[in-house]
Amino acid sequence: MTLAGRHLISINDFSNEEIEAVLNLADEMSSALEKGKRLELCQGKELYTVFYEPSTRTRSSFETAMHRLGGTVVSHAEAQVTSSVAKGESIADTIRVLERYADVIVMRHPLDGSTRLAAEHSSVPVISGGDGAHEHPTQTLLDLYTIRKEKGAIRGKSVALCGDLRHGRTVHSLVIALARFEAKITCIAPPDFGLPDHIRDILKAYRCKLTEYESLEDIVAEGSLVLHQPRVESRESRVESRGGRGTPERSVSRLQTPNSRLQTGFMSFLLENLDVLYFTRLQRERLPTREIGGAAEESYRINRQLLEKSRDDALIMHPLPRTGELAYEVDHDKRAAYFRQAGYGVPVRMALIALLLGAVEARVSEGPKETKLAKDVCGVRCLNPRCVTNAECYAAAKFYQVNPQLLRCYYCDWMVRVV
Amino acid sequence: MTLAGRHLISINDFSNEEIEAVLNLADEMSSALEKGKRLELCQGKELYTVFYEPSTRTRSSFETAMHRLGGTVVSHAEAQVTSSVAKGESIADTIRVLERYADVIVMRHPLDGSTRLAAEHSSVPVISGGDGAHEHPTQTLLDLYTIRKEKGAIRGKSVALCGDLRHGRTVHSLVIALARFEAKITCIAPPDFGLPDHIRDILKAYRCKLTEYESLEDIVAEGSLVLHQPRVESRESRVESRGGRGTPERSVSRLQTPNSRLQTGFMSFLLENLDVLYFTRLQRERLPTREIGGAAEESYRINRQLLEKSRDDALIMHPLPRTGELAYEVDHDKRAAYFRQAGYGVPVRMALIALLLGAVEARVSEGPKETKLAKDVCGVRCLNPRCVTNAECYAAAKFYQVNPQLLRCYYCDWMVRVV
Amino acid sequence: MTLAGRHLISINDFSNEEIEAVLNLADEMSSALEKGKRLELCQGKELYTVFYEPSTRTRSSFETAMHRLGGTVVSHAEAQVTSSVAKGESIADTIRVLERYADVIVMRHPLDGSTRLAAEHSSVPVISGGDGAHEHPTQTLLDLYTIRKEKGAIRGKSVALCGDLRHGRTVHSLVIALARFEAKITCIAPPDFGLPDHIRDILKAYRCKLTEYESLEDIVAEGSLVLHQPRVESRESRVESRGGRGTPERSVSRLQTPNSRLQTGFMSFLLENLDVLYFTRLQRERLPTREIGGAAEESYRINRQLLEKSRDDALIMHPLPRTGELAYEVDHDKRAAYFRQAGYGVPVRMALIALLLGAVEARVSEGPKETKLAKDVCGVRCLNPRCVTNAECYAAAKFYQVNPQLLRCYYCDWMVRVV
Repeated sequence: MTLAGRHLISINDFSNEEIEAVLNLADEMSSALEKGKRLELCQGKELYTVFYEPSTRTRSSFETAMHRLGGTVVSHAEAQVTSSVAKGESIADTIRVLERYADVIVMRHPLDGSTRLAAEHSSVPVISGGDGAHEHPTQTLLDLYTIRKEKGAIRGKSVALCGDLRHGRTVHSLVIALARFEAKITCIAPPDFGLPDHIRDILKAYRCKLTEYESLEDIVAEGSLVLHQPRVESRESRVESRGGRGTPERSVSRLQTPNSRLQTGFMSFLLENLDVLYFTRLQRERLPTREIGGAAEESYRINRQLLEKSRDDALIMHPLPRTGELAYEVDHDKRAAYFRQAGYGVPVRMALIALLLGAVEARVSEGPKETKLAKDVCGVRCLNPRCVTNAECYAAAKFYQVNPQLLRCYYCDWMVRVV
Repeated sequence: MTLAGRHLISINDFSNEEIEAVLNLADEMSSALEKGKRLELCQGKELYTVFYEPSTRTRSSFETAMHRLGGTVVSHAEAQVTSSVAKGESIADTIRVLERYADVIVMRHPLDGSTRLAAEHSSVPVISGGDGAHEHPTQTLLDLYTIRKEKGAIRGKSVALCGDLRHGRTVHSLVIALARFEAKITCIAPPDFGLPDHIRDILKAYRCKLTEYESLEDIVAEGSLVLHQPRVESRESRVESRGGRGTPERSVSRLQTPNSRLQTGFMSFLLENLDVLYFTRLQRERLPTREIGGAAEESYRINRQLLEKSRDDALIMHPLPRTGELAYEVDHDKRAAYFRQAGYGVPVRMALIALLLGAVEARVSEGPKETKLAKDVCGVRCLNPRCVTNAECYAAAKFYQVNPQLLRCYYCDWMVRVV
Repeated sequence: MTLAGRHLISINDFSNEEIEAVLNLADEMSSALEKGKRLELCQGKELYTVFYEPSTRTRSSFETAMHRLGGTVVSHAEAQVTSSVAKGESIADTIRVLERYADVIVMRHPLDGSTRLAAEHSSVPVISGGDGAHEHPTQTLLDLYTIRKEKGAIRGKSVALCGDLRHGRTVHSLVIALARFEAKITCIAPPDFGLPDHIRDILKAYRCKLTEYESLEDIVAEGSLVLHQPRVESRESRVESRGGRGTPERSVSRLQTPNSRLQTGFMSFLLENLDVLYFTRLQRERLPTREIGGAAEESYRINRQLLEKSRDDALIMHPLPRTGELAYEVDHDKRAAYFRQAGYGVPVRMALIALLLGAVEARVSEGPKETKLAKDVCGVRCLNPRCVTNAECYAAAKFYQVNPQLLRCYYCDWMVRVV
């Protein structure tokens, strides 16, 4: 297997061995950068960044990565305004032109599955810089790199994911990768903000056991943390979506909040066992109304008191930008890893670019698992209103066959039950 | 004659020999690119892209062209917002500063003649990336390159231009060039969307005979194409503009649509003789209201049925972006040349940049024809409401003397009759 | 002292000797550029431009400067829209990420003191490209370079600053520098548009005597210029702010306009003694309402008549963009230096970048004066509504102790009287 010429749209596009090849090369890139060595591995190569949504870290670090490799960059920082999309051009047409100019394309787009659609129309590697609420695979590469570099390994580490796990695309890619690398995963999300069904379905394949909590309340008066008990996993009791969101959703049995004395003990137990606390911002731009998020955001906040209870060697991670969920007072703690984490974006993306362009060849024996597309799904549509197949008229729906009754969208991974 | 230091605002700024010099060098650039040879012809040179309108292809391919030549780029992708124009700066002032930073400037602007005005104030080459509804000369260079490369020559080829020929700046430059290279030109445009008068005037000088049709109706039920008969060219019967558009316009005598049986035969004859079908999008952004375009757009569409009637070796071209006029089903046909056409943008623009910067010297004996400016035109104003002279207060109107009664605007080429 | 690794936020961050080191190196850069010599001093280095406000000259000339030095650039031309700021990110967080990607950062932001805040959070040099109405130090470097190059020296030259001296950040940096280099300074500004108090306070330290006029009226019928007499400097008679502006302000005793005969003589005297007339645009974007400015703008205009009265060897300067205050007819006069002035932006910024990156080492014995921060100012807030400390919640107010009753904001230099 080679990574040259490949796309990276979902973290599942790469096998574990391939991910490790990227991380290993990132280590080499990192030490070359530190020594001030100039790398001209990609001289004469052209990277395109095509961003239909705002970005600071992803676009910047890709562009710097390419420059550090000796390559050049053409930037579409606000493609929704500055490109022909403003004249009504489709994603496919845009890519079919740009693939003739670029050697590699990084694309961010608000529609789920949009970058997969782009990749289908490109003969040069397309890297997703995030597609809607779906995935953000290069963020995951640098998250894995951070854990491996600062905790020595990923396997067996205990990682808590806190915040908006439903709409956070970084978390979607990350939780899959963590499951594949056999980390212990704890999810802490308010009701309605838990992992979406399609992610749970993908996780099943890796026999991942999720420990889940419904809420991480704000520090209570006496300095203890109120944590809701693990909710009973009632995977079988499937019910209809509870209106207003337009999406099918699992029922969640709400448990009573236990008294805080009990909680304190429990929380200590939990925090003492966590190697990584990964926080995420509420994805306001993906919420139907702003109100929904308001309450949820209030209950998510890491601050000094929570830090005091955490292990001395825990990592506090965050994909950034943060809003209220991560207090500024945490920044001065040595466990705060999020700015270092952002910084790793450059060597990790250098490694990825170099491998996809074939400038460096990785020794990898096993590629990603091939999943077969479902046949005879004519007329079936993806139920995700933000799926690219519901927005671009020429994009035909395609599905993976999960089981005889269940399909998963080829573009956005949402589940469709067929009767 | 040398191309070094010259501007390219109108396709008529270059002689035929000079255009061929660009196309020949583009061939060399193209094969160098294919061999992966690095060209460092423009090392140390700085290209500025200054775009006041959205662009995917033009800006990108210029920037990639410069990178492939070893040069560097400063990009103003949304100059109307991000530059001092937002503080009220004039075109002249902007250029008089940028010419001190750049070695060559590519500019796109919504006003007709704006790039000519810019060129007047610049000591470094200014290349138009499109000025309003006026011209788009570098698109024409790559259109000519496409025809020459894929059909072997331009001279004598039969080219049909279909769509919004009034507002489409790419067509304006192209039809002039086709006339100069003695192609056979067929224009197919709905009423009010035909070539504007000033283009017809320029064409006259090249003794070009236009064959014109008023409408290319959608495929009728029985699969035949309804084509209106050529309209009688009543060039002498000049009447006043028919209100609402604010522009002087020739009267057009509407003919009855012949029955479709007749049409089918005629269409076959037509299609069998066409080497190139060049489609263009309705320029919604240049229309006074959106409604006008609605109907016109409906009657323009190339699809599989039309393709079946066309010659096996015909080229379907389109400057892109497309909207409804070009069905996705056409993409898979080998005659569909539009993505290849877009791809030629890089070698053609590399050739142009290298020649204007003097990095390569073309052996050209004849330059463009010099046309004299009219004297004693004090007080005469251009009638084009989108002409740069009607928007920038310091820009004085200038005209070419077509004949004792007729002037042509130096900036936007619109005609003014003097009494 | 070395300039390597230093920030440039206020012109007072550099000593006179350091400013001269930049100007001397700019001279070398300039002649290298003229000879077409390639400089690869900053090869492998990455410059970030992060602009939250429109810019033509500053961003462009920094990017070109970096390219001419062999370095690379990542551009955020409209950071308020395209970066994570659109998701609510703070200045500190943005910089703490970008400092891990960039080798040097140029930032423009609408809040006063914002770039100082950025510099506090960056381990790589931050250069201010203008912060609100506060300062624009690199414009000042090129202004000084222009005067020195075209008038031979700065010391002893007679410089008039005309226009909106209150809101014009370029003037704020410049007047301080002129005072430090012992130029003779004349300020001509309409009432309410004079230099702000904090600038006057800084000037005091350099024992600078300002000559000030309240208005430069439009040319009167007989071709004479109406100039108000110098106002009595009543520095002691401090009164409360005159409402509506929300800012503390000195009282100004209005004098009667003398008759124009007297004026004519006086004006001639004035113009005959001026080496430099520096005009500035009304900073509409910093005014509470547009009306206030309307009248003021009317009274500021340099045109041919004024030029005729000026010295043959005077320099007309302007930081650009201009609006109505500088007539186009002035452009053709040899004294019009403003486009040359803009052009000097490239060599001056090349010199600055090379010095801050340590690519060139300047021999400088004396650094800038250190001023001590005030202690025990808990609870004191800056009175400037546009100060970054009043917008970014985590930014704690800091002050310099001017005297026991007077503080000056560390970020925006506004004065606060403590009781």
